[in-house]
Amino acid sequence: MNASIITIGDELLIGQTIDTNSAFIAQEFNKVGIWVKRRVAVGDVAADIEHALDEEAQQSQIIILTGGLGPTADDITKPLLNHYFNGKMVIDPGVAKHIEYLFREVYRRPGPISERNKKQAEVPDVAKVLHNANGSAPGMWFEKMINNRKTVFIALPGVPHEMKGLLSDEVIPRLLQHFKFPHILHRTAVTAGMGESYVAERLIDFEAKLPKQIKLAYLPSYGMVKLRLTCQGTHIRKMEEETDLLFEEMTFLLQDILLSKKDEPVEAVIGHLLLQQGKTMATAESCTGGNIAHAITRIPGSSKYYRGSIVSYDNTIKEALLQVPAGILQAQGAVSSETVEAMVKGALQQLGTDYAVATSGIMGPDGGSDRKPVGTVWIAAGNEEKIVTRLLQLRFEREQNIEIATIQALLLLRKVILGKE
Amino acid sequence: MNASIITIGDELLIGQTIDTNSAFIAQEFNKVGIWVKRRVAVGDVAADIEHALDEEAQQSQIIILTGGLGPTADDITKPLLNHYFNGKMVIDPGVAKHIEYLFREVYRRPGPISERNKKQAEVPDVAKVLHNANGSAPGMWFEKMINNRKTVFIALPGVPHEMKGLLSDEVIPRLLQHFKFPHILHRTAVTAGMGESYVAERLIDFEAKLPKQIKLAYLPSYGMVKLRLTCQGTHIRKMEEETDLLFEEMTFLLQDILLSKKDEPVEAVIGHLLLQQGKTMATAESCTGGNIAHAITRIPGSSKYYRGSIVSYDNTIKEALLQVPAGILQAQGAVSSETVEAMVKGALQQLGTDYAVATSGIMGPDGGSDRKPVGTVWIAAGNEEKIVTRLLQLRFEREQNIEIATIQALLLLRKVILGKE
Repeated sequence: MNASIITIGDELLIGQTIDTNSAFIAQEFNKVGIWVKRRVAVGDVAADIEHALDEEAQQSQIIILTGGLGPTADDITKPLLNHYFNGKMVIDPGVAKHIEYLFREVYRRPGPISERNKKQAEVPDVAKVLHNANGSAPGMWFEKMINNRKTVFIALPGVPHEMKGLLSDEVIPRLLQHFKFPHILHRTAVTAGMGESYVAERLIDFEAKLPKQIKLAYLPSYGMVKLRLTCQGTHIRKMEEETDLLFEEMTFLLQDILLSKKDEPVEAVIGHLLLQQGKTMATAESCTGGNIAHAITRIPGSSKYYRGSIVSYDNTIKEALLQVPAGILQAQGAVSSETVEAMVKGALQQLGTDYAVATSGIMGPDGGSDRKPVGTVWIAAGNEEKIVTRLLQLRFEREQNIEIATIQALLLLRKVILGKE
Repeated sequence: MNASIITIGDELLIGQTIDTNSAFIAQEFNKVGIWVKRRVAVGDVAADIEHALDEEAQQSQIIILTGGLGPTADDITKPLLNHYFNGKMVIDPGVAKHIEYLFREVYRRPGPISERNKKQAEVPDVAKVLHNANGSAPGMWFEKMINNRKTVFIALPGVPHEMKGLLSDEVIPRLLQHFKFPHILHRTAVTAGMGESYVAERLIDFEAKLPKQIKLAYLPSYGMVKLRLTCQGTHIRKMEEETDLLFEEMTFLLQDILLSKKDEPVEAVIGHLLLQQGKTMATAESCTGGNIAHAITRIPGSSKYYRGSIVSYDNTIKEALLQVPAGILQAQGAVSSETVEAMVKGALQQLGTDYAVATSGIMGPDGGSDRKPVGTVWIAAGNEEKIVTRLLQLRFEREQNIEIATIQALLLLRKVILGKE
């Protein structure tokens, strides 16, 4: 069963916002066996939205729209759908009550509720209302026979947490009542330290013998390559057996570069290792400016092994809080192997952990020199016994350089924890 | 002149990767007056890609494709385009040389270059080759008359930094040679502390009198609302005069909630303020785990006013490095007004800055209690004279809670710097 996602809003077409909603919807659909065939983004233009509806209805039996349901004039989706499905607008008492509740109890707004917000209780009489627990704009469910197939159109607000709540609590349960879906199975492994083409060389024979219902995909990202096996079918048991067997074979062929047999970031892998060993870690960041700490603390439960960070953006902080000897900063400079090594020592001591990781570099656009151009980054990771340092020469823009240095530092720390460095 | 963006790859349809390329392309196109009418994401399926090509060619004269150009078996875009445009594959000597150079000089790979990588020098003879300075997969430019209009199809690799380089250095200059574009003008203001519908109430009369060539859009995000005026036309001078005048009027109507007259994040606004005042700042983070430090150091030149952060994820660090009195941690707990106030004091002292901001809370999914449920967050900002604290009750998931707490803490710091708190 195919689905199409239509996201609505000029902000998506001028690049002002990045569309994270589609990814979430696709993930949730996949889990229940709905294959997203197409994603389309259109502007706040009635003709373009209607054209997209006509078009996607030819491709998919489930069409999900997000955006344009807000209370402001540029939100045209609701009247448009009302017209598209020949409905008329009626006040939904349930939604009206919910809006009352939200503005009085949750937002605690003084004074009367504006007409504009009351109007959000208006819905097309041809739509089933989907309760939006996190906001005032309700979701809507429309049905229409197209090419003799029941086709479902679902409109959701574009605000991510509202969309997410509606999708999980209202949309997916209803879809499961209406349709019977095949199974879609994914197994993802993550490798580090080898380029996509070299990983592919390793898997030539493996890939050649894959049965047609199982696809292998390569997803390269900074310093890592994700490998995803996807299987579609009807007998979940059989699919799992077959896919897991192949997945084991694939990961065995990649064992020397294998980071994880799950689709998880390196900071999660480090978390597992530290929990297993009952060890703790700290960070001492200069050029990554807290991004390593953020990556680690994004992981639920990281407080069990992560104690903290000293972000020493200014050299005086490197001296004062991380005890980097002034001599090193003068002689070798802040961006040097000696400095990051001293930062690791300082972090181990000041934060009292088993492991620490450190970074110092020039992320750009300014601050480079002939000897140390923009993109020069030193990273270090270690414990009481041993500290390893590495030099990176990054060639990208500031934000990417920060991201890559973060990942490389975490990959180095992982090797140190595993005793592979 | 309309453009369509087609992004290719199953990973976009199962939600494994978030499409940031389209946003970048749309931004760059907008700057030169190319309006992105549609964005479509399709899987690694020949029929679906060809269908998208046919369809978008009816909508747009510029069709840009990203993804599927890599060296692995799931990369089918190049042969598909070769077939679609009736070409035949030929080795491009320029690309072949570039691949040699990359693998020898840049990636420093030992041994011979694999057939798979050499093969990346193959291009359809009907395509103009676009030089990919950052990678081995070249971009390709195809032209075809469709409905008596010259229509351009441009294929770029999906790896973000490769795509970005190609777009800026190759694609846009060529498009400017081939076509004459109208002007598209945007003016964006950012407000904080008032909901979308309330901001809209303020602007009812203003919005009613906007000329038809100028559109107003509302972009709500955590605690903020962006307002964007967009003007399309041919006389840039006239457009600027008209739009700027209206923009001034709009921002005047919103002056009490105005955060910026540019499309910039609150951390950039804080940067401007600190540079103007010649002041410095530091952060002391618990529950935001370094994300505030990351937000601030994302901004180029932040080293001029940002000295560093103590991420005290563990309470012992709050005591040891931020001098939070043990008595407070025992009596009021780590998540309390007293603790974040003490954290600000500690940061001001330890990091020697004029201002500091602090956070402490429970981000979930675990760690909540009846008295302090998940989402309970205390934030504080201040200087030697005065420290202000606020309680947040967040209702979302871990990553969102971290993001919202970060923004709220920065908004509070801004008010403190402005003396509005």
